Amino acid sequence: MADAYAGRRERLREHCGASGADAALITRAANVRYLTGCPPCGATLLLTRDRAVLALPDDLPPDDTGEHLIAPDVTRLPVPAGTDTALAAASAVARLGVAGLAVEEHDLTVTRHRAVAGLAERVRLADVGQAVERLRVVKDEHEIADLRIAAEIADQALGELLESILVGRTERHLAMELERRMIDHGADRAAFPVSVGTGSHSGQQAHQPTDRRVEEGDFLTVVLGARYRGYGVSTARTFVIGAAPAPWQVELHRLVFRAQRAAREALGPGVEQCVPDQSAREILRAAGHTEGSPHPIGHGIGLEIREAPRLGPTDMGKLDSRVPVTVGPGVHLPGRGGVRIEDTLVVRPLDEGGPELLTITTKELLAL
Amino acid sequence: MADAYAGRRERLREHCGASGADAALITRAANVRYLTGCPPCGATLLLTRDRAVLALPDDLPPDDTGEHLIAPDVTRLPVPAGTDTALAAASAVARLGVAGLAVEEHDLTVTRHRAVAGLAERVRLADVGQAVERLRVVKDEHEIADLRIAAEIADQALGELLESILVGRTERHLAMELERRMIDHGADRAAFPVSVGTGSHSGQQAHQPTDRRVEEGDFLTVVLGARYRGYGVSTARTFVIGAAPAPWQVELHRLVFRAQRAAREALGPGVEQCVPDQSAREILRAAGHTEGSPHPIGHGIGLEIREAPRLGPTDMGKLDSRVPVTVGPGVHLPGRGGVRIEDTLVVRPLDEGGPELLTITTKELLAL
Repeated sequence: MADAYAGRRERLREHCGASGADAALITRAANVRYLTGCPPCGATLLLTRDRAVLALPDDLPPDDTGEHLIAPDVTRLPVPAGTDTALAAASAVARLGVAGLAVEEHDLTVTRHRAVAGLAERVRLADVGQAVERLRVVKDEHEIADLRIAAEIADQALGELLESILVGRTERHLAMELERRMIDHGADRAAFPVSVGTGSHSGQQAHQPTDRRVEEGDFLTVVLGARYRGYGVSTARTFVIGAAPAPWQVELHRLVFRAQRAAREALGPGVEQCVPDQSAREILRAAGHTEGSPHPIGHGIGLEIREAPRLGPTDMGKLDSRVPVTVGPGVHLPGRGGVRIEDTLVVRPLDEGGPELLTITTKELLAL
Repeated sequence: MADAYAGRRERLREHCGASGADAALITRAANVRYLTGCPPCGATLLLTRDRAVLALPDDLPPDDTGEHLIAPDVTRLPVPAGTDTALAAASAVARLGVAGLAVEEHDLTVTRHRAVAGLAERVRLADVGQAVERLRVVKDEHEIADLRIAAEIADQALGELLESILVGRTERHLAMELERRMIDHGADRAAFPVSVGTGSHSGQQAHQPTDRRVEEGDFLTVVLGARYRGYGVSTARTFVIGAAPAPWQVELHRLVFRAQRAAREALGPGVEQCVPDQSAREILRAAGHTEGSPHPIGHGIGLEIREAPRLGPTDMGKLDSRVPVTVGPGVHLPGRGGVRIEDTLVVRPLDEGGPELLTITTKELLAL
């Protein structure tokens, strides 16, 4: 892995060099991790032409959180706990002979930026923009392997839940149980708070679990994802509680299933980002379902749960191979509930078998 | 409560007026909540001389997360999901005849600040600084009532855990069980990830729970807090597993207990912020325990888990009445473990009975 981190840093150096900066100050946690392996802890990476200096709090618990994950060719600069690591790194800039420093203006607050500028005297500040985020879009096979494990963990937790008795349990309890099961199966933690919505709460995008109890005849929507070695996935399924789903439930589930399949099948290298969303939306619209302000059907996923590329109805740009994305349309009928079905997939060319489905729990309308 | 929010906004208006701005753009989630009641959702408050406009995402789940918590005299400006609410609010600025706009430069990134400036044409931008954070330091009795309930919830969860069998269970499981119990008892959620450290992990500040199992003879340190209506507390206790603590355990626990008591007793209106820390540190130092880079012994607590004032060894300024703070010294002996004892208390004058202890679980060295 040390080689992978070094290669990523080299690509960032090339980017900075091309824009006239001879160093970069990376503060965004996911970007620091991508370039050094360091888990989120408030660390800052100062990358010069020949050095990688990681300013990190000196009170990291040594034995259990990640000191050993940091690439060995990165120089540690321990910073007293409570001190801003970006400022500690900026103080080292002049000493290292830096002339132009590219910073992450989308991450630094105005106040921190001003403090960095004050410390990095006689150094020209520039904006590195989303350069690291762009490097992160296409994943290597190590990253995809971690995503596969994260997906397996989510699938296992969900599978176990489906075998248990659900009627009478609250959304909150089911959500907590899923989080516990994912940790039991080896997740770092849940990639985001698990959402469980039942009855009129089902089918929503980010329903916050309540004390509502699962009842016979309910739709039950579960949105979950595990994080493994920093990499997260997201998946959603909708089931029905009881023996016989109502006709409207069967119909709505079939519709969302078809829309989600169309979007999945539209994924491929060279495909425009808006196409999967349009494919699904067309099917939902033909059945009379339209949203006020349309949510994108999906987005890139990796070290952050929502990262580039965005798969919205008006997003430009083409998909690449080895880009993991979510695909998750849904329909929510106010007062009645709804259906949401989401997968995490990796974009692959047809000669590699087409899109690789990571979250493999069945999308059938199970009656539980 | 609507009156309380209006009163807080009026004080912020006075602050802005004094510094020559006729409007403020508040983006920091805890500050938005303090001024409007709106739970964290990416909302932005635009406060002009005569209006309070809250730009908030239009996809907030209506029935379960907080729309009803927003003060009724605040005007809603729904913003399409995925759009930056600060930019939506900034677009309204010119229309509302604002000449000078104070923004939170410690919250806005350079990129967002630039975008706000671009949208708020012909409006002079200024920095409102930590004005709202300063308003938040002294709590009103409604806020303290919520903190009391948050503390009760944490105490209940901890009390129940102490009655269960602990040997053989992992730190992760115990931490998850505490989070579940707090939610069962009515918490919004855990105020921060519960920390459970056993054996050599005990006594640490922010130990991330591992799969290590509780063993006979271990120290067990639990750091937890509930959040109730947005207000969080923090408490830590250290126990010993098994019938008879070892002499070094008894001695270390007694030492940290004494240090923590000294810091608690030092709290009072008019007391310098550094005094509680110094009181505790003196006792620890006399016993030969010193830290490399000293953590502050505590800090303010409320809508954020760590807010002003900081109670570090060199912090200037005086404590006020009705300021809730944490007081939590600890000693960790690498390889052996340690003791941490933390409470949340409200600073009160002697004629109101002195510091009000919110987290009342016993601090005795229980053998479990």
